[in-house]
Amino acid sequence: MDRDTIFSTLSQVGSNVRLQEGIYGLIKFLAVIDRYPHSSMINISKESGFPIPICVAIRNELVKIKWCSKESKGTSVTELGSKALFELGRFNKSFSCSNCENGLTFPIENYKEIIEKLRALTDLRGPPNTVIDQSFATTETSLVRVLTMGDNYDLFFRNYAFVGDSDLTSIALALLIGSKSRITVFDIDTRIRDIIEKANEEHNFDIIFVEHDLRTSIPEEYRNKYDCFVTDPPYTIDGLNLFISRGIELINNSTGGVGYLSFGNKPPNDQLLMQKNLSKMRCLITHIFARFNEYIGAQKLGGVSNFYRMQILSGAKPIIDNNYEGFLYTGERKPTKRLYQCKNCKIEIEVGQNQKFVTIEQLKEVGCPECKKYIFQKKRERKAE
Amino acid sequence: MDRDTIFSTLSQVGSNVRLQEGIYGLIKFLAVIDRYPHSSMINISKESGFPIPICVAIRNELVKIKWCSKESKGTSVTELGSKALFELGRFNKSFSCSNCENGLTFPIENYKEIIEKLRALTDLRGPPNTVIDQSFATTETSLVRVLTMGDNYDLFFRNYAFVGDSDLTSIALALLIGSKSRITVFDIDTRIRDIIEKANEEHNFDIIFVEHDLRTSIPEEYRNKYDCFVTDPPYTIDGLNLFISRGIELINNSTGGVGYLSFGNKPPNDQLLMQKNLSKMRCLITHIFARFNEYIGAQKLGGVSNFYRMQILSGAKPIIDNNYEGFLYTGERKPTKRLYQCKNCKIEIEVGQNQKFVTIEQLKEVGCPECKKYIFQKKRERKAE
Repeated sequence: MDRDTIFSTLSQVGSNVRLQEGIYGLIKFLAVIDRYPHSSMINISKESGFPIPICVAIRNELVKIKWCSKESKGTSVTELGSKALFELGRFNKSFSCSNCENGLTFPIENYKEIIEKLRALTDLRGPPNTVIDQSFATTETSLVRVLTMGDNYDLFFRNYAFVGDSDLTSIALALLIGSKSRITVFDIDTRIRDIIEKANEEHNFDIIFVEHDLRTSIPEEYRNKYDCFVTDPPYTIDGLNLFISRGIELINNSTGGVGYLSFGNKPPNDQLLMQKNLSKMRCLITHIFARFNEYIGAQKLGGVSNFYRMQILSGAKPIIDNNYEGFLYTGERKPTKRLYQCKNCKIEIEVGQNQKFVTIEQLKEVGCPECKKYIFQKKRERKAE
Repeated sequence: MDRDTIFSTLSQVGSNVRLQEGIYGLIKFLAVIDRYPHSSMINISKESGFPIPICVAIRNELVKIKWCSKESKGTSVTELGSKALFELGRFNKSFSCSNCENGLTFPIENYKEIIEKLRALTDLRGPPNTVIDQSFATTETSLVRVLTMGDNYDLFFRNYAFVGDSDLTSIALALLIGSKSRITVFDIDTRIRDIIEKANEEHNFDIIFVEHDLRTSIPEEYRNKYDCFVTDPPYTIDGLNLFISRGIELINNSTGGVGYLSFGNKPPNDQLLMQKNLSKMRCLITHIFARFNEYIGAQKLGGVSNFYRMQILSGAKPIIDNNYEGFLYTGERKPTKRLYQCKNCKIEIEVGQNQKFVTIEQLKEVGCPECKKYIFQKKRERKAE
């Protein structure tokens, strides 16, 4: 049984039950039963989010094709159903907290090997390029993102796109699910390309890297082909609109898909604008994981951001559907100039846009222009007029 | 120190720091420090959701008016600050799960007395009126709703409105916070009025009941006066739009406020429409508690619904701003007719709109028209054309 056979079988089931959630809705339903064997319809309804009459209808169809059995102690997945599910993805674990049942706990210690492999690669990145609002999520955050996707039954997709991936979450995904699915990363930073190439070599992955400035539309060959995108956009509403728009260009427009968004807290009016734009683009927010992502540094945001799961409905429409020339990064709207002093020779160096050093990270990498030492103290900071 | 003094003091602080979240944002900030004494700015920023520079600015202002102290081990609330907070509300508890920290756990056993008092009152309601989509939440759900409001720093408000309250959550609130705040219930069901009057007598509460058909606009005297509304609308998009619109009419339009919404899972397109409408009305979804509410019966929904917290931004605008004459309840759009048979005398009785018995609950209450027995079997169910 291959993916295409499974899909054509499920497409028949789908048309019999007229499920708005489509084939991936059916796969989720099957995965729910697989995760909780011998469940009652009421519990399957709660877990899947489908009303009971619809659950009964789907179950009956799955019994007909012998993917599910209907026993007195509840419904279970048959060997045939298991095979189909296994072909689509092998990761079907819940991380529900055993204490409260509404939170998530991640036994990081069980994923030590993945963390170590991932850290060996993320360590190669060098400092974040803060000019393009890069700030790196911790290695644990990258892992926990993909585990959360798993908890939400989102690791059965065929095609995953990363709209920017300075956190290397794509590698965490590949380390978790192996080569079951196709993973593509769109990023402008060639350091990311080099690391992904290294990961592909070392671990025999097939992650595709597309060097791409996301201000430009997604190339035709990649459009309308993905089931899931993951993004951590620049920390502005424009950046958000642009990266989500690119994500939507990638998603299969007739089936829809899923999007995972990392974004920090903004003032209420900006957050409202964000939700307005998302619903305009047909992105339905299903989960808000507050303070989920932890970053190295990024003190202004308190070092955290929220993680959103969105269902991208069929017929989704990007707000920005051509090349984008406007502001994108926090530094562009109100460029900040900072004056640093070398702790050793005391000379002062201006850091900011149109200066020799655009960020303090760059200055630290090169060292003091006078004495070549690496320790600086901030003397002044001001927004440009 | 009374509420007005506190508010004028905080209004000065607010104008000094220009906080978009307004006075209640400052109260939340104070409550965060009160809940977590000796906290670092980074932790206060994480918990409050305000960026660190803004946290520092607020803290400095609160130190100036001697409501907070600034010590080497972190910030704390002074006796004066405590007094102010205590005047606004006494409930400042976290229910964060100690295991996962991102879920909530409610030690129901600590609230046994409230549960018992509440159950004694909810037991008086009689059967739900399913014609107006009533289905009663469990007593525990009513309590846990208000505890969740507390966890979210939402029990410091002056005025609470319940837009429909067949679950008697208003009484759970009064049992929890006493007479600190004003609570008003708007409902068409006079059984609710009778129970609230009884609760007022027994427990010396001042809950105001306004007998009101929510199809009609909120009377002028109640508009623009509340800080928080709670609603569990009829299970249709029209019902949702109407009840949220009425909630917004109640909220103080210049300061904004908070709304708590209970609503079941709908197909994705309907959920998207819901989010679109909410953001159009300037309701910002901050929390989605999936499968939070449990109902007695309500099997079609799997007996559960989601609980949403929304920030109602200043200048919020209802979608429905006059009297509403359209469909509202699930039964109106596609009225269902059911045929029941008396288990005893075998006569058949049609139940549904325009019949003598509109619901099976009514039939059971009156008994079989022939033999007066109370047990019936459903023979047939169909949607009217």
